[in-house]
Amino acid sequence: MESYDFILSVAIILAATKLLGMATKRIAMPQVVGALLAGLILGPACLGLLRETEFLNELSELGVIVLMFTAGLETDVKELKKSGGPAFLIALIGVLVPLAGGTALAALFHPGKEFLLQHLFIGVILTATSVSITVETLREMGRLSTRSGNAILGAALIDDVLGIVGLTLITSMADPTVSIFTVLLKIAAFFVLALVGGMAAHRLVDRLTGGPGRDRRRYAVLSLAFCMLCAYIAEVWFGVADITGAYVAGVIISNTNRTTYIASKCEGLSDMLLSPCFFASIGAKVVLPHMTLSIVLFSVLLMVWAIVSKIVGCGLGAKLCRYTNRECVQIGVGMISRGEVALIVANKGIATGLMTATYFGPVVIMVAATTIVTPILLKLVYKGRKDYGDLLQTDLVDHMEDVKDLEDAAQSVLDIHTNMLREGETHRESSSRDC
Amino acid sequence: MESYDFILSVAIILAATKLLGMATKRIAMPQVVGALLAGLILGPACLGLLRETEFLNELSELGVIVLMFTAGLETDVKELKKSGGPAFLIALIGVLVPLAGGTALAALFHPGKEFLLQHLFIGVILTATSVSITVETLREMGRLSTRSGNAILGAALIDDVLGIVGLTLITSMADPTVSIFTVLLKIAAFFVLALVGGMAAHRLVDRLTGGPGRDRRRYAVLSLAFCMLCAYIAEVWFGVADITGAYVAGVIISNTNRTTYIASKCEGLSDMLLSPCFFASIGAKVVLPHMTLSIVLFSVLLMVWAIVSKIVGCGLGAKLCRYTNRECVQIGVGMISRGEVALIVANKGIATGLMTATYFGPVVIMVAATTIVTPILLKLVYKGRKDYGDLLQTDLVDHMEDVKDLEDAAQSVLDIHTNMLREGETHRESSSRDC
Repeated sequence: MESYDFILSVAIILAATKLLGMATKRIAMPQVVGALLAGLILGPACLGLLRETEFLNELSELGVIVLMFTAGLETDVKELKKSGGPAFLIALIGVLVPLAGGTALAALFHPGKEFLLQHLFIGVILTATSVSITVETLREMGRLSTRSGNAILGAALIDDVLGIVGLTLITSMADPTVSIFTVLLKIAAFFVLALVGGMAAHRLVDRLTGGPGRDRRRYAVLSLAFCMLCAYIAEVWFGVADITGAYVAGVIISNTNRTTYIASKCEGLSDMLLSPCFFASIGAKVVLPHMTLSIVLFSVLLMVWAIVSKIVGCGLGAKLCRYTNRECVQIGVGMISRGEVALIVANKGIATGLMTATYFGPVVIMVAATTIVTPILLKLVYKGRKDYGDLLQTDLVDHMEDVKDLEDAAQSVLDIHTNMLREGETHRESSSRDC
Repeated sequence: MESYDFILSVAIILAATKLLGMATKRIAMPQVVGALLAGLILGPACLGLLRETEFLNELSELGVIVLMFTAGLETDVKELKKSGGPAFLIALIGVLVPLAGGTALAALFHPGKEFLLQHLFIGVILTATSVSITVETLREMGRLSTRSGNAILGAALIDDVLGIVGLTLITSMADPTVSIFTVLLKIAAFFVLALVGGMAAHRLVDRLTGGPGRDRRRYAVLSLAFCMLCAYIAEVWFGVADITGAYVAGVIISNTNRTTYIASKCEGLSDMLLSPCFFASIGAKVVLPHMTLSIVLFSVLLMVWAIVSKIVGCGLGAKLCRYTNRECVQIGVGMISRGEVALIVANKGIATGLMTATYFGPVVIMVAATTIVTPILLKLVYKGRKDYGDLLQTDLVDHMEDVKDLEDAAQSVLDIHTNMLREGETHRESSSRDC
């Protein structure tokens, strides 16, 4: 006989993450906070309804792979090349300041030169900005197309890439038998192979399927298969993190014109199953008895440093690029929020032994705090008059909403037609039977 | 350290099922045949690239739950009540004939009164029609709205319900310590509870969410959670099969006006991950060494009986309802194809010990054969002139295609607007920097 507990677990996970996500959204907080909270409440730290199972862990691993793949899909390579200079400087200083501070903080609480990699890992967790919350807030306020808004978008992109490089370097160095030279060689080899192989695979698929057909689903499933393959090859053959492989797969595919459809399909998969399982498995990893006074202090400092370091680092970068003081603060605040990526990296750290479970609680708290604080601070620093460009942008957003309504209307017409079809059939049946 | 094999497995499963599905579709065969073939080729019967893992089994169990949930969502209860009489008779005889013959065939090859339940189980596998292939073929030919087409639709619906009742009865009786009376009582209790509880939950959700909002995703995820909960409760509390619970959950939710959206979300989840894993796990269960001469003979007879019994049974039912001879043959042929449901039931049989792995190969062959043969035979028996009603229906289908194109156009406009937004931002940024 089988055990059916995993079905119940999935039911509880889906319901809890969604209901709490809806609740946080209602009080103008990001849904990710609710989902995280749900995971914490269900986990051993609170109700203890969930325990870590292999099934949940593997499902959550698929979840992070799909999340990073989608992030890769949404990377606009052309935009990245264009925004270039200033964005790069903002991102670089905005990565180095939290990295240095995080490493120092970890060294302070758990001294010892032999733990250097572990200390660096805490620093790496602090680097990756999750820009989605900022983008949502700025779009709502009609401020996305300002000079500072543009700088934030560009810097967040480069920030992602730098974070991935940092993570790749540190996980590769976790194996002490390998020299740093081999590590770098392997990483370089991976990126070259991914690029060449990806382009080749892409052309092959195009030729086989013979251009855009009616059934576009095939591309989504095949792209996902490609992403999983990249993740596996990256991890097992090159010692590069699997999520790096997934991210690179996304960037490769982002150069095709079917990206929107593939991304929406992958988001569907995430929303319906994988993402809730990821948050639940995060929650299941946070254990309360480990929260000693020292850890509580560490949590508070980590949280504060996460917020301050981005404002200082990115603000400094912006200042060097001659942004106004007001813009520097706006850019710094816009880069505060850490989201899924920090959690994914921390998760990876536990899997590779680079982070002990003790530090998991503080990281989760840091992510939740930065995510909550960002929209509040953004509203404060963006107060004031709008310029003409902003208005134009708001108009465009309104236009897009109209087109979306048009789509909905088309869907309704479709439904009506379906009903007509059905009724017509029934009618004809009864009339022909009467004859 | 973790093992990453499951990621590679998922990559291979997704790529193989999709590529072979595309190949079978190109030669006008249903995609399900290709997916099944992919499972067989990957499994131990052929390449041996896949082995049964707990992860794959649990993912495939989630897959069948979602598939049966979607089937429940698509059940039109009103239509079922209307088409009533004739459809019920066609379905009933069309279920009894294969059931009796299948049971007899199994008894012949593996005699013994003590195996009665096992023999009945082979019969039950033969009962469930998978009407989707017939619907697709008839729609393509513009024959869906004919008298026989209507009869097929109605009968297939009732056929599904009868199959579920049969499966529920037989799996419940598999435990010899329970009396048939208790079994029936439990089943009745389950259906009453599901109906009352489902209605209550439905009203509660409606009140909490306050009518139709913009973010319709919440309903899809919550519905899926409800489906998983029903599946678990059915299996663990009532001894009713989990897939019955999922099907009932789908029927309960099918009474709401959000069904189309929920169904499309669940289909997305199936297409992108769960359904391929289900076919792969089916393939991984077919073991070649078990295919002795006796089993090969059994396979052939099972296949032939699967085809003949539906033509005879459903045809007889149709004749009793005074359909013309030509229509009787059309209805019988339309009911031949068995699909996912037969595989799901067989899967369940192995899990509960009601079927030995030996019979799995024959069942898979039977499903593949009936699925392939149905569209070919349908084209033969529907040859001839169309009537006015058919033309009207074809027009409506064309209309629907037009509306779909409209939707695509709206999507393009959206994309253009997105680009305009982006370019506008870049332009403003550069111009404001020049000042």
